[in-house]
Formats: sequence, structure tokens, C-alpha cells
Amino acid sequence: MNTLTIDTSSIVASVAILNEEKLIGEMIINHQKKHSEKLMISVDHLLTDGGLSIKDIDVFGIVSGPGSFTGLRIGMATIKGFAQALNKPVVGVSTLEGLAMNIPFANGLVCPILDAQRNQTYTGAFHFEGGHLVRDMEDSVLEIDVLLEFLKNRKEPIYFLGDGLPRFSETLLKACPTGVSVPNYLNMNRASSAAALVLERALKGKVSHYREIEPVYIRPSYAEEHKK
Amino acid sequence: MNTLTIDTSSIVASVAILNEEKLIGEMIINHQKKHSEKLMISVDHLLTDGGLSIKDIDVFGIVSGPGSFTGLRIGMATIKGFAQALNKPVVGVSTLEGLAMNIPFANGLVCPILDAQRNQTYTGAFHFEGGHLVRDMEDSVLEIDVLLEFLKNRKEPIYFLGDGLPRFSETLLKACPTGVSVPNYLNMNRASSAAALVLERALKGKVSHYREIEPVYIRPSYAEEHKK
Repeated sequence: MNTLTIDTSSIVASVAILNEEKLIGEMIINHQKKHSEKLMISVDHLLTDGGLSIKDIDVFGIVSGPGSFTGLRIGMATIKGFAQALNKPVVGVSTLEGLAMNIPFANGLVCPILDAQRNQTYTGAFHFEGGHLVRDMEDSVLEIDVLLEFLKNRKEPIYFLGDGLPRFSETLLKACPTGVSVPNYLNMNRASSAAALVLERALKGKVSHYREIEPVYIRPSYAEEHKK
Repeated sequence: MNTLTIDTSSIVASVAILNEEKLIGEMIINHQKKHSEKLMISVDHLLTDGGLSIKDIDVFGIVSGPGSFTGLRIGMATIKGFAQALNKPVVGVSTLEGLAMNIPFANGLVCPILDAQRNQTYTGAFHFEGGHLVRDMEDSVLEIDVLLEFLKNRKEPIYFLGDGLPRFSETLLKACPTGVSVPNYLNMNRASSAAALVLERALKGKVSHYREIEPVYIRPSYAEEHKK
């Protein structure tokens, strides 16, 4: 089963093609949000060099949020276009789940931290059991102090990763003596990590129709709040 | 310091651009060895989308072996070309070190396994201490039985990864009760993992002149042996 997964939830644009046998290819660009310009070129490049056509893709995966509102919309629109045109199912994966899958052998709590602006963070918490991702906290938008309240007194290692680290790592590592900052080459969104969950869910039949799937923003945009 | 690292040591062709701040981009293609056709296109794509020119690269990284003889030669020739033309230093990283860096939070022995043909494997052994890679066994070409002798009676988890897994995993996991097979999306060569070591070494000044660096084959090719 060939899956093609897109992650445009942050400044990183990433695409991966994964099946049961192997990761056929992956592209990561972590420089300026020009996803609408770059995404289709990357998809095309990966398919061509991977010896596939878009018709060989059985399931489309999308990192559905939280994250950059515009980024999520571009990724979602692209995936819906593919799924509609080719009549194929879609699997959505949380941005935070995808990040956690970068480090599946972390022996403790995995805590992805996205910068949600306004001194807030999109965050969640996970651990791994026998190589499988287990969720310990729902994806949430939290003041950093509320997150610290949840994390303090933890005895196990806490692995922090995500684009919120540059802003919050000093605070987090000071408050959490068992905190570990994931090195930068594994710190950002990688479509292949999300793709592992896309494939796992697709193999269990946990797929959606393209009409059923929407970006998961968690909170309204500043413009929407302001309008109210 | 911008580093550009190439890994063509196996069927996987991979390129990554990494600096102290972030992974600017990565490309992985795991389909047919057409490295001589595809490599420069991937380099070009990454540089362009990463907002860089080849002149912005300060250090060139190369996965220098063991692995596919032709693949190693293509990667090495490309890197030497860049380094010579631009008068920049080179850092070589072992294929097995690069693979181990895919899973820096593995809590046990990391044992990359490459298929060396003739029922042999290119292998090494590592563990991580405070996030740093520590070597436990030199890169070697071994009969699988000799490797099992080294691994048996180990009590800690042993993480197996690399292109030798499809062939040897059944034997390895049967003989090693604490053996763990790394999932396929983290099982193969990723230039970003090697790049983390390239950058670390370059920052310490551990660089080479392009004339000093050569592929590390470990053993002579079948043709060379046959000639003797």
C-alpha cells in the first residue's frame, strides 16, 4: 500500500512516500513559507525519482494541525484535490503526533512544543510502548505556565521538540530537570514520521473520505476572534 | 556554518543541508541506484528551495563507507568536485555511524547491519551517552555467525537497522531476545543523520582536505579478489 503524506503545518514543507516495505522517498524544505509554490514541485520530484505516478498512491496522508493556518489549508487543499480526483481515501495525523514519531525510541515523555504566538504553545504529550505511540495529553493550546504545571514533578526524561523550542526551551529546561532538547536535525516536522502513522491507520482501515477531513486549528485565528 | 552532506553508500541517495540553527533541507530517494543521474538534481533542488547557492556551503560531508562500491565512488567524486572547485574542507562519516544517528535516543546497543553479499555483513556497534554517539565495535565485515557471537548474552536492548535487515533480521531477532527491529521509515540512510556528525566534527576543526579523503571499502571488491 503506497501512501503519500504532506506536512505543511509549519515553516517546514515536507512530503514522503511510504509503503509496508520501505520509505520510497522524502523531501524536507525548512526555509520560508512558500508552500503553495514549492509543494507540487516536491511531490512531482519524489514521484518521478521514486518510479511512481500519482495513480500508484493508494492513500493520501495529511498533517492536519495544529499549526500555521495558511500552511494547513494549503496542505489540506492539495490532499483533497488528489483524493477527489483519484477517488482515494485520506488519513489525517496530528502535527504533534507526527513530531513525536521522529524519536520512537525515546524512553520517557515526548512533549512537542509549537509556537502558537501570544505566549502560548500548541502542545501534547506522548510516550512509546513497544514501539507504539501512546497519548498522555490531548493536543491543546496552553500558556507555557500551564504546561509547566503539568510537567513539574515528573521523574522520567521529558523530550522537547518542535518549532516552539527556540522560544521556550530555556524556560522548559530550567523548570524540568529531566528535560532533554532534541537535536535540530530531528527537531522539526518530517512527513516520513507522520507517514508511519498514516500507513499504520490505513492498514487498519481507519481512513476518511476527503469530504470528512478538515484542518484542526484548535483555536480560532486572531482575525476571527477580533471579529467577534 | 552551512554543511552539505551526501550519502550514496546504498540504494538510497540522500542529500542534506544542516547548520547550527537548523536542518535547511533533506532529500531521500530509495529507489534504484541511479545516483549519477539523480544526485546533482537533488543538490540543486535543495539549494534553490533552501535559498542558498553552492558557494554558501562551508563544509562538505560525505558518507564514506562501507557500502556499495560504485555508490561510494559517485558520492566521493561529487564531494571532491565541490570541495576542490570552492576550496572548502570535507568531513567523512562512516555509513554505520550515520545509520546509528537515526535513533539517538535508543537506550541500548545500536547495531547497523548492511548486506555485504556472500553471507556477510558490514556492521559496527554503538551506544549513546548524553546524546553523543559512542563506538563499541569498529566497522567490520563479518559472517553473520561471528556477529551473533559478539551479541549473544547481551542483556540490554539491541537496535538493528540498515539494508541488511530484510535478509538477516529473522536470524538476528531469533538469536538476540532483546533485539529490536527499527521501523522502516528510520531504517535506511538519511543524509541528515550523518550531517549531524559532519557539523559536530567541522565545528571542532576535524576536517580533511579533499585530497586526503577516500572511500572506506573495508574489503576488496570481488573483481579485485578474483584478479589475485
